[in-house]
Amino acid sequence: MRAVLSWWGWQGAGGHPDDPLILDAAVALELFQAAALIHDDILDRSDTRRGAPSIHRAFEARHQQAGWRQDPGHFGVSAAVLTGDLCLSLSEEVFASAADASTNPAGARGLFNEMRFEVMAGQYLDILDEVEVPGQDPAEALQRARTVLRFKSARYSVVHPLGLGGILSGADGDLLEHYGRFSAPLGEAFQLQDDLLGVFGDPAVTGKPAGDDLREGKRTELVAHALDLLTPSQVAEVEAALGDPDLTPEAVSRIQTLLESGGARARVESEVLELGDASLAALVEAPMDQGAKVGLERLARQILDRKH
Amino acid sequence: MRAVLSWWGWQGAGGHPDDPLILDAAVALELFQAAALIHDDILDRSDTRRGAPSIHRAFEARHQQAGWRQDPGHFGVSAAVLTGDLCLSLSEEVFASAADASTNPAGARGLFNEMRFEVMAGQYLDILDEVEVPGQDPAEALQRARTVLRFKSARYSVVHPLGLGGILSGADGDLLEHYGRFSAPLGEAFQLQDDLLGVFGDPAVTGKPAGDDLREGKRTELVAHALDLLTPSQVAEVEAALGDPDLTPEAVSRIQTLLESGGARARVESEVLELGDASLAALVEAPMDQGAKVGLERLARQILDRKH
Repeated sequence: MRAVLSWWGWQGAGGHPDDPLILDAAVALELFQAAALIHDDILDRSDTRRGAPSIHRAFEARHQQAGWRQDPGHFGVSAAVLTGDLCLSLSEEVFASAADASTNPAGARGLFNEMRFEVMAGQYLDILDEVEVPGQDPAEALQRARTVLRFKSARYSVVHPLGLGGILSGADGDLLEHYGRFSAPLGEAFQLQDDLLGVFGDPAVTGKPAGDDLREGKRTELVAHALDLLTPSQVAEVEAALGDPDLTPEAVSRIQTLLESGGARARVESEVLELGDASLAALVEAPMDQGAKVGLERLARQILDRKH
Repeated sequence: MRAVLSWWGWQGAGGHPDDPLILDAAVALELFQAAALIHDDILDRSDTRRGAPSIHRAFEARHQQAGWRQDPGHFGVSAAVLTGDLCLSLSEEVFASAADASTNPAGARGLFNEMRFEVMAGQYLDILDEVEVPGQDPAEALQRARTVLRFKSARYSVVHPLGLGGILSGADGDLLEHYGRFSAPLGEAFQLQDDLLGVFGDPAVTGKPAGDDLREGKRTELVAHALDLLTPSQVAEVEAALGDPDLTPEAVSRIQTLLESGGARARVESEVLELGDASLAALVEAPMDQGAKVGLERLARQILDRKH
């Protein structure tokens, strides 16, 4: 998705689709994403990713199969820390060569650096929210969830890839602003969908166990709305479930029902619809190449309807 | 040390000491070192660094003091993964601006990228050596230990900082080769000293517990020589101690005695002396600024005599 967004951002500003520069940039964004996911799976203790073992689990299994010494779990985490570091370094190396070949190396690298910084700070806010004893003010919880969503995900998944593609083919400030009006709501909708899938998603489609976000204690907007909508005893039940690694499938099912019947799910779903409408309306207004516009609309609809 | 080496490397090739470029490069190298150490302390489960808590332990303590939820140890590791990622990203950002201000941006960045790659690959070889069930061939063990030492430490601690300083001020191939003849043996001597300190160092001076390398199961050259010099039952005792996190002070003391009386320590110490002589002899031959030469000689002697 990031690679395709950067490609359309590039074409939308007049870049030629066969230019190797944009292919390098797309590779760099996918490598950066790989680095973020590999380390994120350590932070979230995720066993699976895209239906296969996460990297630290894969190294752990390699240790066990080979009958090596010492703790397989620690070896897995250690090797995954290094693998993520390597992907992070390589992503920058590839991106630098794309930026240098562009007409605006300093602008492109500045945006890339901003993206990196935002993701890392956003990830820290995310783990902090999981462990800090929460206040019970729903408005504050919603605000915090929205901040994490923006910096940890929306901006680097959607906003920055599109902007980087644009800046690499010399988009001016006006076009980049139009990109932002399209991509900012789309990025938020993307992550809200992810939050819905993290609780209600079909494991066979998402490649992750049902209710994984609940076990990890993710304080998403879905949870913030529940604080607002549920009775105190129901809120206490949700709070007790959040971050419990041993949450049973029955307990997951019970929390799903609370989030659904209380109206939290519907609120998030209607936010996704509104954000999607705003995004598509902004796209219509954008002064850009028609082919790229059609491509971006199709991609936006896929993101808004995604099931995994 | 890395900052100072890059500074002398820069001056040795005619760079002006007040140029902000070399200060940026020095900052970048120290940030890179910080990233490597923060992640390395996770891999090695080190509780302390430079006499203070390691970063993951510091975040863990913060969690405990604040009375946050979930597992403090996991929060500490997670926050330290992100802190290392941030230092890694910032180091590259600062280095890129130094490289761009130099006469050889591509050469400087290429060497920086090579350094990053080597450290990460070297770290992986290091953790692999800790867990793989070892063969008993001392020559092979020595070879493996030397490879890890080179890539994990010698090159990025000494060889590359000096070379990066040189390349940033336009050193030609001949001067860089002279740098390498001085820095390659010095880098190896530096890490062999580190290996000695990791087993025999005074905790009050090193800031790390006595025998930490033994508990971590580091298969250093010291250990490789022990395989060669000790009796089979003594070798078995060393092997049993390596990687045992609960090794008592008495057991550490017993292994120290075996490494000392068997001659392994003396072998490593004489290697340090030989490497130091080769390094200083190469420095005499190097066609460089006399002031930088004097500075590098003083630094080399500090490295060769270091107690922490």
